[in-house]
Amino acid sequence: MITRSEQRAAQEHALEYFQRASIAITQKEAERIEVVDNGLGKLEETGLEILTYVNTERVCAKELVLFPRQTCPEHWHPPVGNDPGKEETFRCRWGTVYLYVEGESTSNPKAKPPKGREQTYTVWHEVILQPGDQYTLPPNTKHWFQGGEKGAIVSEFSTRSRDEFDRFTDPQIRRETVVVE
Amino acid sequence: MITRSEQRAAQEHALEYFQRASIAITQKEAERIEVVDNGLGKLEETGLEILTYVNTERVCAKELVLFPRQTCPEHWHPPVGNDPGKEETFRCRWGTVYLYVEGESTSNPKAKPPKGREQTYTVWHEVILQPGDQYTLPPNTKHWFQGGEKGAIVSEFSTRSRDEFDRFTDPQIRRETVVVE
Repeated sequence: MITRSEQRAAQEHALEYFQRASIAITQKEAERIEVVDNGLGKLEETGLEILTYVNTERVCAKELVLFPRQTCPEHWHPPVGNDPGKEETFRCRWGTVYLYVEGESTSNPKAKPPKGREQTYTVWHEVILQPGDQYTLPPNTKHWFQGGEKGAIVSEFSTRSRDEFDRFTDPQIRRETVVVE
Repeated sequence: MITRSEQRAAQEHALEYFQRASIAITQKEAERIEVVDNGLGKLEETGLEILTYVNTERVCAKELVLFPRQTCPEHWHPPVGNDPGKEETFRCRWGTVYLYVEGESTSNPKAKPPKGREQTYTVWHEVILQPGDQYTLPPNTKHWFQGGEKGAIVSEFSTRSRDEFDRFTDPQIRRETVVVE
């Protein structure tokens, strides 16, 4: 749960990131930047800011903003009916993003999970993305990511987003953000 | 047909566009910028420069560079087997792009087709895209586009690119660019 004023402040902050990275967005887009707290109410630790450019039956494209050390928590995109699950490519546009995926665990990883929730972070193969770097993730595989010291902007190119089917390792996480006045 | 030195010059020129727009690309990506002359050998009139970020079975993302008044000629993406055809979203990142699609013809359109090839441009519903503007095109519909006075960078978010199935109104057009030493 976040307040309306926290939501607005995070939208403004995300807009500054877009300006810093020279990513042009329209006024209408600025007003619909999605602020996600994953239900934990600690936006500076867990969550992200999303601008969805397009989400058709077949293709989705977004910009993701991560504030400094903000963490998108561990989740995966399971098959839905005939769909094998959402496939995603993350491309870093600005800043640094620490991405963790299934595979051999990295010793001395650069990111730390939010305090008290360490046990809900189980995949530790580290991929460091700087501007111009990208990584394609197959469907139905666990992943999480964190912004570096300055935060990050990441373009996501994917199949259709069906957020309601996302699965999270942390049972307290909710995809929907409740905003109170 | 273009020469190797024309190809290299166009890659360098496209790279300047990316730098101008603060779009970070890697050295390896810079070296594989695709220079397309559509077989006409007049790159400054007909063609475009393409950096494909990703092209999986399901999703494709590219940056397209159009030099000033450079024209991507009229074409469409037909169904292929069970695939209804490529669906594309064009998002202008920098400069201006004049996009023409099926629909009511626009009087006094801003773009002019390359001289001598006017009869191969048949759709005239004009969409003007400035930075932050975008347009989603259904599969199997004719379209063409031209960079404005300064040129343009356009992000393309789409289903899989299968260039070999593209259909062009101009029978002299070829999708493949032949490069000679």
